[in-house]
Amino acid sequence: MDLKPINLQEKLAKFSNHWSPKIIAQMNDYHFMLVKFQGDFVWHSHADTDEVFITLDGEMSIEFRVGKVDLKAGEMFVVPKGVEHKPFAEKECKIMLVEPGGTVNTGDAGGDMTAEDNVWI
Amino acid sequence: MDLKPINLQEKLAKFSNHWSPKIIAQMNDYHFMLVKFQGDFVWHSHADTDEVFITLDGEMSIEFRVGKVDLKAGEMFVVPKGVEHKPFAEKECKIMLVEPGGTVNTGDAGGDMTAEDNVWI
Repeated sequence: MDLKPINLQEKLAKFSNHWSPKIIAQMNDYHFMLVKFQGDFVWHSHADTDEVFITLDGEMSIEFRVGKVDLKAGEMFVVPKGVEHKPFAEKECKIMLVEPGGTVNTGDAGGDMTAEDNVWI
Repeated sequence: MDLKPINLQEKLAKFSNHWSPKIIAQMNDYHFMLVKFQGDFVWHSHADTDEVFITLDGEMSIEFRVGKVDLKAGEMFVVPKGVEHKPFAEKECKIMLVEPGGTVNTGDAGGDMTAEDNVWI
């Protein structure tokens, strides 16, 4: 056991690309990831898992077919499994994601925005 | 689905007691909880699960038999399952915990500091 805290700002400083989650911690079979959003992501859903978004810095929104939720720093939201959603952020926004290891960022949609899996920083 | 963000500061303002985690969100069978630490908790372990501590405000430490880790705001730590630990905070510290629903705060130790289970705020 490494008795070193995981510092979120230090980890965020290690990457600059958007829409590409980086793993910073594992709890059982779940990953805690940091990601930077800017612009529009793709509509997608995750058939097998809920997904947690915690906004650390900036503002972002998650669009659903029935409306949208706006999240600023210090706010979180749980996207239920199977529910189509499209994250977007006008300006760069820093987020922590929590979901099972191996969850594909683009879910059922796939495509060019699918990030490399299992990248630790 | 309620399209309302979960605001951590608003939730933290809803309670003042120490060492008594309150659930603010559920992801699959995991709970995201807020708790305020002040003083010393009891030595305990959780045989079946890792446990995540994310410090939101203030400073706290987790003592282990082999040393301790100090966490300030914006830092997190994963206590591995089965590892004895004792959280403590000299001044009040605000924390987010993530662990499976039904995890007892005092783990194997029990006793007076065992919190009421499954309290949502």
